[in-house]
Amino acid sequence: MVDILHRIGVKAPLAEVYSALTTADGLSRWWASNTTGSGDSLGGELQFRFMEGGFDMKVLELAPNEHVLWEVIDGPEEWIGTRIDWKLTRADDFTVVLFQHQGWEQPVEFMYHCSTKWAAFLLSLKSLLESGQGAPDPNDLVLGNWR
Amino acid sequence: MVDILHRIGVKAPLAEVYSALTTADGLSRWWASNTTGSGDSLGGELQFRFMEGGFDMKVLELAPNEHVLWEVIDGPEEWIGTRIDWKLTRADDFTVVLFQHQGWEQPVEFMYHCSTKWAAFLLSLKSLLESGQGAPDPNDLVLGNWR
Repeated sequence: MVDILHRIGVKAPLAEVYSALTTADGLSRWWASNTTGSGDSLGGELQFRFMEGGFDMKVLELAPNEHVLWEVIDGPEEWIGTRIDWKLTRADDFTVVLFQHQGWEQPVEFMYHCSTKWAAFLLSLKSLLESGQGAPDPNDLVLGNWR
Repeated sequence: MVDILHRIGVKAPLAEVYSALTTADGLSRWWASNTTGSGDSLGGELQFRFMEGGFDMKVLELAPNEHVLWEVIDGPEEWIGTRIDWKLTRADDFTVVLFQHQGWEQPVEFMYHCSTKWAAFLLSLKSLLESGQGAPDPNDLVLGNWR
């Protein structure tokens, strides 16, 4: 099992970062414009839709302003059963986001791509909260021959 | 042992990407402005200097337009002995870069940070080769309270 790890510091209050991770409106502003469902209740499900396919997540754990854990219940084969873990803390004037996409079976080339793509979307999250403007799909950064 | 993985597709010939990874001039345009040393010979050493500290790498393997492998011989404690592996292939109209920072002892918070930071520098590499303008230190993206 291998994991994707990232860290960003966001100049915004904990509650704003938590909201951007737990509401369809917030998520739609930095990840998938087409996001529906419920991210702020245990067992809730979120549907993220991109031009080609998408992901469904189930909310496994929630601790307001501290922790969010999703399980991928539908999407690309390599993603199903993996977990997305968000931990929030404060350091200096920043809300620090520790991100894990846990439990990949193998470090396949698609995992390399998703790692870079997650970084780009985390920068989109940071930009949204600091400047009001994210870069969600479909206006996100295209990394090359794979979206 | 845990690894950082990334993938980008760069709209540039293999030889240009290889050059940006094996010459001090190329490396200085997307990673550390202050880069010296020899990256195009086996056993060569490269010195990357940032505002706070830096990294020294030794070239362990070179296959022109295909593969570059460095070992970190000086720098932050967590980096020493780890390896940076670059594999280049062609796909569609892109040179695909598969990047690994291999052999971290533990997934410490600094590793999360370096993972996101590597993604930002890979985007700098892509930008350099596609538009002529990279974003090397000290003009790179600051991710938060850690540089």
